[in-house]
Amino acid sequence: MKKHNFSAGPCILPQDVFKEASQAILDFNDSGLSILEISHRSKDFVDVMEESRNLVLELLNLEGKGYKVLFLQGGASLQFLMVAYNLLEKKAGYLNTGTWSDKAIKEAKHFGEVIEVASSKEKNFNYIPKGYTIPEQLDYLHCTSNNTIFGTQMKTFPVTDAPLICDMSSDIFSRTLDFTKFDLIYAGAQKNMGPAGTTMVVVKEDILGKVSRHIPSMLDYQTHIGKASMFNTPPVFAVYTSMLTLRWIKENGGVAAMEEQNEKKAKLLYSEIDLNPLFKGFSATEDRSNMNATFSLIEEDLKETFDAMWKDAGINGLNGHRSVGGYRASMYNALSLNSVAALVDVMSDLERKA
Amino acid sequence: MKKHNFSAGPCILPQDVFKEASQAILDFNDSGLSILEISHRSKDFVDVMEESRNLVLELLNLEGKGYKVLFLQGGASLQFLMVAYNLLEKKAGYLNTGTWSDKAIKEAKHFGEVIEVASSKEKNFNYIPKGYTIPEQLDYLHCTSNNTIFGTQMKTFPVTDAPLICDMSSDIFSRTLDFTKFDLIYAGAQKNMGPAGTTMVVVKEDILGKVSRHIPSMLDYQTHIGKASMFNTPPVFAVYTSMLTLRWIKENGGVAAMEEQNEKKAKLLYSEIDLNPLFKGFSATEDRSNMNATFSLIEEDLKETFDAMWKDAGINGLNGHRSVGGYRASMYNALSLNSVAALVDVMSDLERKA
Repeated sequence: MKKHNFSAGPCILPQDVFKEASQAILDFNDSGLSILEISHRSKDFVDVMEESRNLVLELLNLEGKGYKVLFLQGGASLQFLMVAYNLLEKKAGYLNTGTWSDKAIKEAKHFGEVIEVASSKEKNFNYIPKGYTIPEQLDYLHCTSNNTIFGTQMKTFPVTDAPLICDMSSDIFSRTLDFTKFDLIYAGAQKNMGPAGTTMVVVKEDILGKVSRHIPSMLDYQTHIGKASMFNTPPVFAVYTSMLTLRWIKENGGVAAMEEQNEKKAKLLYSEIDLNPLFKGFSATEDRSNMNATFSLIEEDLKETFDAMWKDAGINGLNGHRSVGGYRASMYNALSLNSVAALVDVMSDLERKA
Repeated sequence: MKKHNFSAGPCILPQDVFKEASQAILDFNDSGLSILEISHRSKDFVDVMEESRNLVLELLNLEGKGYKVLFLQGGASLQFLMVAYNLLEKKAGYLNTGTWSDKAIKEAKHFGEVIEVASSKEKNFNYIPKGYTIPEQLDYLHCTSNNTIFGTQMKTFPVTDAPLICDMSSDIFSRTLDFTKFDLIYAGAQKNMGPAGTTMVVVKEDILGKVSRHIPSMLDYQTHIGKASMFNTPPVFAVYTSMLTLRWIKENGGVAAMEEQNEKKAKLLYSEIDLNPLFKGFSATEDRSNMNATFSLIEEDLKETFDAMWKDAGINGLNGHRSVGGYRASMYNALSLNSVAALVDVMSDLERKA
């Protein structure tokens, strides 16, 4: 039985992507060679890289607007460092909305002054701060659009003259936004874009080249822009599989269509969480993430029964993160409404039985 | 027809590895889930990481000798930086034996004094320097065991009191060495170990923690040792496929058996290069690499004929690197003697025809 996979990441990708990626490992583009054994300088792979870049710009509606797309390694965690290395000269602002923002702040502090513009840490990050004042003269303002661990999502974004940097690792390609408001977006691939092993960076070129420090080659965005993400051997398979996923998004109506499905899935699940007396949500209602729903049983003694029931229903990856406890249902693009319905059925069944 | 793949990297891996990796993308360990959609914190993947680490230590005969194995991202190029960040306090020595050594030197210079202990740059790196004097009081001495581009390989290694660091990207697991002579070994996976997308680091823990500078979390070996390569999401598929390749090496007799086969392949090809009057080798005979053979036609006007002939024979990836020209035949572990024989046949055919 194919599982209903609610994993927080690495996570479900479209079944067609799995099939095509699996086939490419045996024979890529009818070349008689595996995608794993071809040169990254071969025309076939250069085409993959180019198509991936173009799909990103097209899906985010950023074509011809001065943005460059990179596929790097090291995850968002390396971006915490690269952002500061490349952009922090004097002081930067950070919104602290979860574990990953917190880590980004920690790394940046070694490069300059870091102003925590707002934080929800005092309430275990169960909401998105609002009504804060953004200081003047920032080198940049950094935010995290979706907090995977806590299940909160920014519905609006701060307005500032400073370059706006956003970690969109867990909700990239899941909703329409005016992406031109951002000067640098980064995302580890392993949620909506592809397998673990590559990190997408979309950067407006004109914000670069302004810090006075020496930047090591591998950490310098300009190195990778200059070499079209081929300064050294890229993670070939992760980029290829990301391209397949980007194609799938496009073929299925683009980001707007993803958003519509994601809204339906989230409404279905949150409605059950709110209406079913056995459950409660973790995060503030207005800040709930459409990607990651965090919730728990009101009576802990139902845990064993509930856990057995969802496992029996073929559901996977529902355990909450240790920082929050309870459950977390991650509903990325490739998760079907049918899978969410399966979970809601189990929750309803529990109510009937309890 | 399956190709004879002489690519320099990413390169051929064992056919059984391709099959198993392809299957795991559809259904990993009979879990009903793809290897691409499972959590890196799941027991199944934690087991993969542990088995990979153990296989590395076993194959290199380094068990119980104070070494830690890491699977990181960013390729050898990020190691050029990490080595200097973690270990260079005052001055380090580098052997400059090729393009990659040269790049490693360039990165290290920003962290301290770099002494180029010996170099073969003046002869386009066609030999390995010998008879040099190693300065005293080095923080470490860095060398490159095999030079993929130029086709040279170190047959002996310098003896020094300083920690010995070696980039073994293109010949790791291809020959037996006393690996305890090295304090840190790194290797991009994409030659003998796996697909592009992960980098193996084997480090003796007692050389770490001695520099006074702040090291960013993601660049600090101690971060990754502390979290068993799971500080952030690792490149799951690249590590898994590396594990499959390491298993294959073990099942096929370990590094000693690989070495025996590699010797046979190299002897067959170099013998043809030397005996066939149409060809000449690039690198100094005593420094020839068993992994990458660089050679060229003596008469350039045979190029068109020869190129057509080897392509007809199902040979792939034979074009030389632009820094050397001519041809390069990379004969990594997974390339069969039969493939080398196919190339030698074509070279002999050319001699008969010419």
